Amino acid sequence: MAAALASFIDGVADAQLPLDDRCFQFGDGLFESLRYQAGRCPLWPYHLQRLQRGCERLGIAFNRALIEQYLQQLMDALGEQGTDSAIIKLQLSRGQTARGYAVPQTGPTIILRAYTAVPFSPLGTPLKLELSAVRLAQQPLLAGLKHCNRLEQVLAKRQLSPAVDDGILCDTSGRVIEAISSNIFIREGQRWLTPNLQRAGVAGVVRACLLERLGSDAEVADIELERLLAADEVFLCNSVAGLCPVADLKTDLGSVHWSCFDASAEVATKYQQLFLRGE
Amino acid sequence: MAAALASFIDGVADAQLPLDDRCFQFGDGLFESLRYQAGRCPLWPYHLQRLQRGCERLGIAFNRALIEQYLQQLMDALGEQGTDSAIIKLQLSRGQTARGYAVPQTGPTIILRAYTAVPFSPLGTPLKLELSAVRLAQQPLLAGLKHCNRLEQVLAKRQLSPAVDDGILCDTSGRVIEAISSNIFIREGQRWLTPNLQRAGVAGVVRACLLERLGSDAEVADIELERLLAADEVFLCNSVAGLCPVADLKTDLGSVHWSCFDASAEVATKYQQLFLRGE
Repeated sequence: MAAALASFIDGVADAQLPLDDRCFQFGDGLFESLRYQAGRCPLWPYHLQRLQRGCERLGIAFNRALIEQYLQQLMDALGEQGTDSAIIKLQLSRGQTARGYAVPQTGPTIILRAYTAVPFSPLGTPLKLELSAVRLAQQPLLAGLKHCNRLEQVLAKRQLSPAVDDGILCDTSGRVIEAISSNIFIREGQRWLTPNLQRAGVAGVVRACLLERLGSDAEVADIELERLLAADEVFLCNSVAGLCPVADLKTDLGSVHWSCFDASAEVATKYQQLFLRGE
Repeated sequence: MAAALASFIDGVADAQLPLDDRCFQFGDGLFESLRYQAGRCPLWPYHLQRLQRGCERLGIAFNRALIEQYLQQLMDALGEQGTDSAIIKLQLSRGQTARGYAVPQTGPTIILRAYTAVPFSPLGTPLKLELSAVRLAQQPLLAGLKHCNRLEQVLAKRQLSPAVDDGILCDTSGRVIEAISSNIFIREGQRWLTPNLQRAGVAGVVRACLLERLGSDAEVADIELERLLAADEVFLCNSVAGLCPVADLKTDLGSVHWSCFDASAEVATKYQQLFLRGE
């Protein structure tokens, strides 16, 4: 198991939490996986936005100044170590209580850890995917959030064939939602489509960034599996891996092989420029 | 916050876990709340059964001998303290990993804690309930299990009116499933009905015990809200509180007041005898 490069709980160097912690008991919290590169986290505004939305939805106090102070503390620690590239996991737990669901009056707890990462590469190696047998439940109250109730993703990851890189997750109505830890974009003619995440799924920060920057060339839509199979190009994206084109997808309805990634490469170049310049 | 009376992690007296723990990161585990009374946990066989089913469903190794050894260790510690009545929380975490959903090769971690409890009372004070605005998502892969992904319950508890004791949770199709931390039985003529938990809900140990002991007088059914409102009697049950009759229920479809609890009291007496004699 990879050891963390640095670990802070509420601003104190520590790597252990009491069993009273609500994330431990109920998954009662939120998290973000940030790519740290050359002294900064370029997608931070998008992470912050999602975290704030999550706090509002779950009724957890959102203290931006404190979160940013602790993040800076971790980045300073990485700087002192001479670490130039890392993945930072920021987790917000609602706080601590003894047994029972009743929420605490204090909290949240802000946890920050850093892990070794390969340097940022905007376009990854083409991926082999399969359709996961796990169907995502539809819960509008939690959809879109990166909360800590992630058993569906754990089960999907566990069931994945060793021969593939990732699995496509549909909801219980059969709509395409995401990959296990990435969002998905599909190319139809001159436009990009990405699934509607109002009922299930995690609304990723790269997805948010691309939707903003691609403007009218990208659209959110309900996407059936047939439509994914008929797409001209497909890519997955997340803050850790960047954009990864999809070369193969195996499903019950048939398998597809894609060999052209030109439009994906264009988006990746655009993403890289923004990422590196921090625009 | 009530301090735990005793706390063991994998057989060692401890109350802190590393941040690598999977329950902390993803709610990736299971738990049981046991009533400990006069040196034993009378519902243990039912807890063990659910835990085993949960482990099978989630792909977590189930080591009965080790779990029972650690439980005995905790009960011995309570005995040495002279504690006669307690609630024991048993939690099974899949284990530890750094960032990411991929499951560990080792584990699980077995966590046991004891909390102060009032002595066992088979029939509690009649309750005031309301219909919760939270609708439970339908996920057959997780339904019935007491897993650690409990954000829906936390949200429901948080939204509960201060004037009521508990909330009734329906699924997203409007079927009655359970209360926030109890199961529900309704009386229709000469029989008891309890909701089908194949799509959502936690299949409680008292529910399992009653279904077994009541035999043909009790049945599992899909129960619409209208049917609950028309019931002759209603009670909630869980391992901590025993059986609690319902006196009031407030919903959008109307409110009901129940004043007769005779059939519920009969079940409670039956439950108490079994509980005390350990049959």
